[in-house]
Amino acid sequence: MKVLAIHGSARPNGNTEQLTQKALEGLDATHIHLRDYTIQPIDDLRHEPGGFQPVDDDNDKIVDMIFDHDVIVFSTPVYWYGMSGLMKDLVDRFSQNLRDERYDFKAELRKKKAYVICCGGDDPKIKALPLIQQFNYIFDFIDLEFGGYIIGKAVKPGEISEDNLANQQALELNKQLKQT
Amino acid sequence: MKVLAIHGSARPNGNTEQLTQKALEGLDATHIHLRDYTIQPIDDLRHEPGGFQPVDDDNDKIVDMIFDHDVIVFSTPVYWYGMSGLMKDLVDRFSQNLRDERYDFKAELRKKKAYVICCGGDDPKIKALPLIQQFNYIFDFIDLEFGGYIIGKAVKPGEISEDNLANQQALELNKQLKQT
Amino acid sequence: MKVLAIHGSARPNGNTEQLTQKALEGLDATHIHLRDYTIQPIDDLRHEPGGFQPVDDDNDKIVDMIFDHDVIVFSTPVYWYGMSGLMKDLVDRFSQNLRDERYDFKAELRKKKAYVICCGGDDPKIKALPLIQQFNYIFDFIDLEFGGYIIGKAVKPGEISEDNLANQQALELNKQLKQT
Amino acid sequence: MKVLAIHGSARPNGNTEQLTQKALEGLDATHIHLRDYTIQPIDDLRHEPGGFQPVDDDNDKIVDMIFDHDVIVFSTPVYWYGMSGLMKDLVDRFSQNLRDERYDFKAELRKKKAYVICCGGDDPKIKALPLIQQFNYIFDFIDLEFGGYIIGKAVKPGEISEDNLANQQALELNKQLKQT
Repeated sequence: MKVLAIHGSARPNGNTEQLTQKALEGLDATHIHLRDYTIQPIDDLRHEPGGFQPVDDDNDKIVDMIFDHDVIVFSTPVYWYGMSGLMKDLVDRFSQNLRDERYDFKAELRKKKAYVICCGGDDPKIKALPLIQQFNYIFDFIDLEFGGYIIGKAVKPGEISEDNLANQQALELNKQLKQT
Repeated sequence: MKVLAIHGSARPNGNTEQLTQKALEGLDATHIHLRDYTIQPIDDLRHEPGGFQPVDDDNDKIVDMIFDHDVIVFSTPVYWYGMSGLMKDLVDRFSQNLRDERYDFKAELRKKKAYVICCGGDDPKIKALPLIQQFNYIFDFIDLEFGGYIIGKAVKPGEISEDNLANQQALELNKQLKQT
Repeated sequence: MKVLAIHGSARPNGNTEQLTQKALEGLDATHIHLRDYTIQPIDDLRHEPGGFQPVDDDNDKIVDMIFDHDVIVFSTPVYWYGMSGLMKDLVDRFSQNLRDERYDFKAELRKKKAYVICCGGDDPKIKALPLIQQFNYIFDFIDLEFGGYIIGKAVKPGEISEDNLANQQALELNKQLKQT
Repeated sequence: MKVLAIHGSARPNGNTEQLTQKALEGLDATHIHLRDYTIQPIDDLRHEPGGFQPVDDDNDKIVDMIFDHDVIVFSTPVYWYGMSGLMKDLVDRFSQNLRDERYDFKAELRKKKAYVICCGGDDPKIKALPLIQQFNYIFDFIDLEFGGYIIGKAVKPGEISEDNLANQQALELNKQLKQT
């Protein structure tokens, strides 16, 4: 089983990344950081005569990587009670992927499982719940099984180490993934 | 009373814009379309020694416009059960605005009122509720009064005209704003 | 088309009832007030050898009335950010109805449409959203189409008349129901 | 530190109770089962001349026990994506407690901490989130600190033992409470 962690943080080695690293320790996991890629905001041409046009950015690369893994971990800091803009830009492009004739996006994702790991500073165990609900609708739409989520609380760099509950959940997820 | 409508759609004259136009008809309203501006995704330097660095984009222009109006309408299509990436990038930058020493972002916003107008195609009156909850948390954090929201349902261009309930709500909001 | 309004308020002629009356004015509507009926809290015997046992209360009467109407309006004040206990007791009994061999609860409800009308005093347009999400899950489970919802704001008796938006929504719903 | 677990299940020794027992093992904890008490649905007389009237049931007993403990655990099965009717009837009575002149309900609760433990069978880690949001609003209103929540998944009796994540969370909560 191969795991792909898609990191949406703008900041290297932040709390969310640390928590995700813990959850994936010792697994066959590929980590990609969206800040190292260029993903254009979607140009919504679905209703135009020619439909979506090719975009010169790294979306194809990431789609390939998604297809090549079995478990996808969406790892994003909670920015303003949502996923980061970097990650939202990637997700928005799913609309284009769904209409791309080079592959069947839904059929590929149907075989996979997704997890969400996110950290926030302002009461995230409550205020990140709409984000979890949003991810649930997203995964539902593309037939991607939602395996579970971890919400961590951390404000300052490294503070996630003090959220015992989130760290326990990361260890438990690690164990589950190793058994799959 | 001056109204600023911030449009987050990637597509000109889409359903959300039409609904917002209806809500603001006959009012002293400025419309800006984020697709005509450049807003960089946030570079989260809040924990770095020097803090946030100046960014060469249009964020300042939009902040000025926000300060210059009394009512701010966040008008965004529902992309993947959230606001558009374009609008999320703007909101993410609020973190930087809050630390900008040239002004007091919260103090300025405290005097204003915000509305959300959004349209989606996939059961938005239910599935856009997490987005409304997210906006509520956002406005709460920056002390911006949440005046209300309208969720429209529309898939194809122009289809919003058939959502009688959303159109009634737009007319009612129009009446309310005219009385202020 | 016959409409059944199930009122969950403990108080006669409260704000929620007034709003529901407005939405149903001039329609062929039956109004039942749960405070006039006895509905026992569910005795969850689903895992016991004999299963659920007959309960001597008015649940059967209400089930009959539900079956006998085409549109069901769940009209409940927002008590503590949820439906009233009176209404929750009725909904909890659905578990028993689903296992009742005298009828096929789901098959009957599949032909109908449900609406929710609720009023609250503490920021209901935001804080009643979890209640709307809950009703959505409930209707989903029993295959009952969710036609829409109205959230009114009112604290003192009669105050709902000042919520213009909710009243407009009630009129719009009235128009829609008359056209069905 | 004294813990009060208020159990809302209609069924003895169900999954929720087992999970709560695990979370409270070895602590100075009192367990009360609402099915052994009589709590009348609220008779909403707040707008009547005389206000609320004394009710001959066990609400006073439970209020006394709440006052007498430091940590309150609301332990309820997820019935129809909400708390049980038994527990909702208790919560609804808070409106009366808030107006009771024999004590200051809010002032008493302000010193305490609350937890929610719930189990459901139909995708509870997503579909019980509105319930968690509802409890958050409830605790907010009465100034009761929300310490955290555990959502377990279980359909058949005893099945909660297979939800490793929920059991880990229960152990973690146990550890935290022992340190307080």
